[in-house]
Amino acid sequence: MSTLIQTMAANARGAARELATRSAESRDAALTAIDAALAERQAEILEANSRDIAAAEKMVQAGEIAAPLLKRLQLDKKYESLSEMVRSVRSQSDPLGRTQSAMELAGGLELYRVSVPIGVIGVIFESRPDALVQIAALCLKSGNAVLLKGGREASNSNRILAEVIEAATVEAGMPSGWIGLLETREDVAAILDLHHDIDLLIPRGSNEFVQHIMENTNIPVMGHADGICHVYVDAAADIDRAVRIAVDSKTQYVAVCNAAETLLVHRGIAPKFLAAVAPAFGAGNVELRGDAATGEILGEQVVPATDDDWKTEYLDYIIAIRVVDDIGSAIDHINTFGSHHTDTIVTEDQDAATQFISAVDSASVVHNASTRFADGFRYGLGAEVGISTNRLHSRGPVGLEGLTSYKYVLLGNGHVVDDFEGDQPQPYTHRLLDNHWSP
Amino acid sequence: MSTLIQTMAANARGAARELATRSAESRDAALTAIDAALAERQAEILEANSRDIAAAEKMVQAGEIAAPLLKRLQLDKKYESLSEMVRSVRSQSDPLGRTQSAMELAGGLELYRVSVPIGVIGVIFESRPDALVQIAALCLKSGNAVLLKGGREASNSNRILAEVIEAATVEAGMPSGWIGLLETREDVAAILDLHHDIDLLIPRGSNEFVQHIMENTNIPVMGHADGICHVYVDAAADIDRAVRIAVDSKTQYVAVCNAAETLLVHRGIAPKFLAAVAPAFGAGNVELRGDAATGEILGEQVVPATDDDWKTEYLDYIIAIRVVDDIGSAIDHINTFGSHHTDTIVTEDQDAATQFISAVDSASVVHNASTRFADGFRYGLGAEVGISTNRLHSRGPVGLEGLTSYKYVLLGNGHVVDDFEGDQPQPYTHRLLDNHWSP
Repeated sequence: MSTLIQTMAANARGAARELATRSAESRDAALTAIDAALAERQAEILEANSRDIAAAEKMVQAGEIAAPLLKRLQLDKKYESLSEMVRSVRSQSDPLGRTQSAMELAGGLELYRVSVPIGVIGVIFESRPDALVQIAALCLKSGNAVLLKGGREASNSNRILAEVIEAATVEAGMPSGWIGLLETREDVAAILDLHHDIDLLIPRGSNEFVQHIMENTNIPVMGHADGICHVYVDAAADIDRAVRIAVDSKTQYVAVCNAAETLLVHRGIAPKFLAAVAPAFGAGNVELRGDAATGEILGEQVVPATDDDWKTEYLDYIIAIRVVDDIGSAIDHINTFGSHHTDTIVTEDQDAATQFISAVDSASVVHNASTRFADGFRYGLGAEVGISTNRLHSRGPVGLEGLTSYKYVLLGNGHVVDDFEGDQPQPYTHRLLDNHWSP
Repeated sequence: MSTLIQTMAANARGAARELATRSAESRDAALTAIDAALAERQAEILEANSRDIAAAEKMVQAGEIAAPLLKRLQLDKKYESLSEMVRSVRSQSDPLGRTQSAMELAGGLELYRVSVPIGVIGVIFESRPDALVQIAALCLKSGNAVLLKGGREASNSNRILAEVIEAATVEAGMPSGWIGLLETREDVAAILDLHHDIDLLIPRGSNEFVQHIMENTNIPVMGHADGICHVYVDAAADIDRAVRIAVDSKTQYVAVCNAAETLLVHRGIAPKFLAAVAPAFGAGNVELRGDAATGEILGEQVVPATDDDWKTEYLDYIIAIRVVDDIGSAIDHINTFGSHHTDTIVTEDQDAATQFISAVDSASVVHNASTRFADGFRYGLGAEVGISTNRLHSRGPVGLEGLTSYKYVLLGNGHVVDDFEGDQPQPYTHRLLDNHWSP
């Protein structure tokens, strides 16, 4: 294991302890300093970015990487959005120091549960250098130290951005070492063992990559491997609504985790709905893969689906279609083959909607709206660090609150447990309080 | 791997999905059924328990197990407390279906965050058969399926209790398979691999055991390995208070995780405080292990401490004592050698208390009270499943709320993302709502 990485993680732990004691004002001032430094050092940053782009162009020509990557790498056209992201994160209310509960345990003995940073967070992200700025801003706002690893195609951009952010924030009084940049795959492999100094890993990227991280570390991992989202069109669906929602869920942006991959259709409405949705999908060049019942209704428009289709995240203009006998079968299908991410029911029957909402075991369950709404910005969380399909800590889109933990603060004036036990025990009052803890 | 255990876990997953849809009234009715069954089948249960006790008595005589275990095994004297625990859990307010946040995303499109069960929980607990009843009641109240493994000395008691609880609750309409009993160490080893069907493990027991579980599974683990709690006596401490708090934290019950193991004393108050606390510890037969400065003050009453003492959970009548130069050194010591469990400062200086509270990175930070208060019952959580030193999900004593997750419920009337993007996008309103989601 690299001792350099161990040192970086230990420094991050020390910085995190410092950061946890800094006021909201000082963290916001450091975010303002990032905003200013991005403007001041724009030429330097874009120069480094142009080197990444030049190298990537050669790799595209050589067929080593895909062309869309180039657009994601480019900072010049979206440069102003970097500062906008920082200002947007700064404008969120402080997630720290919030009193989540307050209780008098006994006369003069008061217990507060107060939000605090998690500590040190490791984020491994895709080849978008703007993601580095967003993640750093979210971690700073929430008082966490962060170790970052971006895509290697963006390495020059990431290096200068991390350096600009560290310099500006340390100058503004933040502890040195609160942000660290990992440069190689070996660095990532090394941090997987550092569970004493890293509290949470957030891997973003391909299914295989996230799965690999989850299986090779004892550090808690937040994120999702698959995004296999479903649209279930119930017997009592409004056909027009169902078509709009199915098309939007599938085609509004196919390359993302909250796009639908499977369409489940109640047998009673299947002939009418499938006849209506097929031309709409056809207009969007969506390949239809259906079960036998779907094939009977739509004929040659449909490629036969196999069981693998129910488990596949296409991230492409392909949708799997299955006709189900009833809502119970739809729910079973979703809980069996889905990834517990986001699933929607289209129905005008309130009881069916309620049954679906309570029985589908997913981070987001939706009634009469597109799966594509499941996103931190649309959910009003400000920015998001990712979407979680974990059941613990954070589930669904994760914003600043998901980057916090809490501690219990107990304030007494000489209270000892022995007075509350034995023959004449003092009683506990356990009375809820309205007040908040503040330093 | 045992296919029996895989089947048990898969059944538990199915039962958990059922349980998540059951009303608070039906879960409470099932708790009432447990209460009644414990009364009806008391003779059978105590007979099974007497067989465990008889076997344990022989093992005590043979020196194979320690005598205090016998008392923990015995159900007859505390039999009424089993029903009291069940009734106490039932009387808590429902942890499920709570609207944690509500927001209008756009006209007619509303997002609710609602508490739901976690799913399937594995609990491995010590040789106290009453713990089985408490854990089962907490899981049922919070809508979770549970796989239980108790100490092998209590195997007859655990078997009859699990059977009584399952029979009574299934009769009351709960899904069969929601409670499963693991019988052997091999069963425990087998469940560590079942991360698709088990969402959370709660191991209770020795440090080594908890550590072993944490290192050998990808399932999230809630709990604590060590409980190395500190009392820091500040320069501005009231001596009498400090003595009472130090003695209570150490001796009120030494065998538990929230008992203090290390006493840190500010140099300025050390001569006076140590002279006062030494006789109080002496009266309780507490062995003192001190650093050089402590030795200079207390002389032969003190055994020299080594660095290992700062990292040791004695769970015994022993305390490590270190003199520190200032509060910063005390905080550093606690963050370096502690287990992030519970630490207390004794001081009349409000600024020092605030500094300690914000800088000590522990689940519970206490001012002028004993570490021994850090407990689910005393914290007003009703019963507890354990105490967590994790930073994610739950920290500190964990009650019913710690056994819940949440899901997002999004309600629209045909909303699609495409209308909110492009040239003339509809705006998001992101307006907080006062109302609650209810089925």
